[in-house]
Amino acid sequence: MRGKFITFEGGEGAGKSTQVKLLVKRLRDLGLEVVQTREPGGSPGAEALRDLLVKGDASRWSPVSETLMMYASRADHLEKVIRPALERGAWVVCDRFADSTRAYQGAGGGISPDFIEQVDQVVVGDTQPDLTLILDMPVEVGLMRAKGRGGDEDRFEAKGIGFHERLRQGFVKRAAIAPDRYKIIDANQSIESISSDIWSQAMTQFSELKGA
Amino acid sequence: MRGKFITFEGGEGAGKSTQVKLLVKRLRDLGLEVVQTREPGGSPGAEALRDLLVKGDASRWSPVSETLMMYASRADHLEKVIRPALERGAWVVCDRFADSTRAYQGAGGGISPDFIEQVDQVVVGDTQPDLTLILDMPVEVGLMRAKGRGGDEDRFEAKGIGFHERLRQGFVKRAAIAPDRYKIIDANQSIESISSDIWSQAMTQFSELKGA
Repeated sequence: MRGKFITFEGGEGAGKSTQVKLLVKRLRDLGLEVVQTREPGGSPGAEALRDLLVKGDASRWSPVSETLMMYASRADHLEKVIRPALERGAWVVCDRFADSTRAYQGAGGGISPDFIEQVDQVVVGDTQPDLTLILDMPVEVGLMRAKGRGGDEDRFEAKGIGFHERLRQGFVKRAAIAPDRYKIIDANQSIESISSDIWSQAMTQFSELKGA
Repeated sequence: MRGKFITFEGGEGAGKSTQVKLLVKRLRDLGLEVVQTREPGGSPGAEALRDLLVKGDASRWSPVSETLMMYASRADHLEKVIRPALERGAWVVCDRFADSTRAYQGAGGGISPDFIEQVDQVVVGDTQPDLTLILDMPVEVGLMRAKGRGGDEDRFEAKGIGFHERLRQGFVKRAAIAPDRYKIIDANQSIESISSDIWSQAMTQFSELKGA
C-alpha cells in the first residue's frame, strides 16, 4: 500500500522544522517507516539548487527563475526520494513543498497561478500531498524568530514585510480551495499545543492512526 | 533601435564557439556594438546553474529537471544581459539558446514540445532570435571532435549515439518550421568555408550588413 504524504507549510519562523521532528517521532513510535525530508532540497541535486536559492541577495533571482529552480529541484526530489518511499509504503513528511512555490513565487512574487499549475502538473502530477499543515502566525512574530536563529540562509527573510504579508494570505487562500487536504494550525502557541493540534488533524485525516 | 539577436545551435563538436568568435569579430569590424555570450550561462546566476548542468554523471538530472534549470538560467540571462543589450541597440551573438532545450531535452530527452513552448512563452516571450544558425554535421564526427577538446564539461557528450542522432534530427525539424529564421549550415567543411556561409546568411537576413 502506498504510504501517506504529509507536507508542512508556512512563513519564516513559524516553527515548521520543530513540528516536523515531533510528528515524525510520533509516527515512528507507532512502528511506521517515515522519511523526513525538506524543500528546497531533499536529494543531492536538489540540495545543490537549494544553496543557490536560499543564499545571497534577495534580488539575486527573479521570481520566474526561482519558480523554475524550485520545480527543477522538486522533480529531482520526487524522483529520487519521495516517490520511491511512498511506493514501498513509507510515510513521507516534508518541510515545505509546492505550496511554498505558490505562496512565495506566486502570491509573493507575482508569478501567474496558471503558469505554476502548468509546471506543477508536469512535475508533481498525481503525487500530491495527502495532508498539508499550514503553520500560521503573525508575520512580525515569525520574522523576529527567524532572525534570531541566525545562519546564512536568509535570502527570503530579507524580502520585506509586504512580501511576507502577501505570502501569508497566499497560504490562507490556498487552504480555502481544498479544506479536506489543507489544515491551518495556529502556530502562535506553545510547542506542545501546536504539536497536539497537528496530531488531532493527522488522526482525523488518516484512519491508520485512529486509537493510537 | 533594437539590436539584432543571433543564436548558434548544433550538436557537440560542430565548431560553434569558433564560428561565434569569427562572426562577432566581423560585426565589430563594421563598428557595431556586439555582446558575445553563451548558454547555459551568460550571467553570474546562469553560470552557477551551468556548472550543475554540464558536469557530473549523464544521469545526474532527469530531462524535466534539465528543462526547468535551462529555462531558469535563460530567464536570468535574458533579464541581466540579453534584453538590456538589445534595448540599447547592441547586437547579441549567443552560443546556444532555447533551440538547444528543444533538441536536447525535447527531441533527445522526451520532454513534451507543448510543455517546452509553455515555459518558453513565459521566459523568452517576444525576445526570440532574429537569426538562428544551425551548424550541422554527422554525429560521429562531432562527438570525436568534442572528446578531443577535453575538460570536465562532458555530461551531455556522454549520453550515447542514439541521443545525439535524435537531437540532430530535432534541430533539422525545427528549422523546417520557420525557414526565414533558421539557416542550416554545413559544418563538415573548413573553418573558412563555414564562416563564409554564415556571413552570406547574415547579409541576406540583415539589410544593415548589405554592401559591408
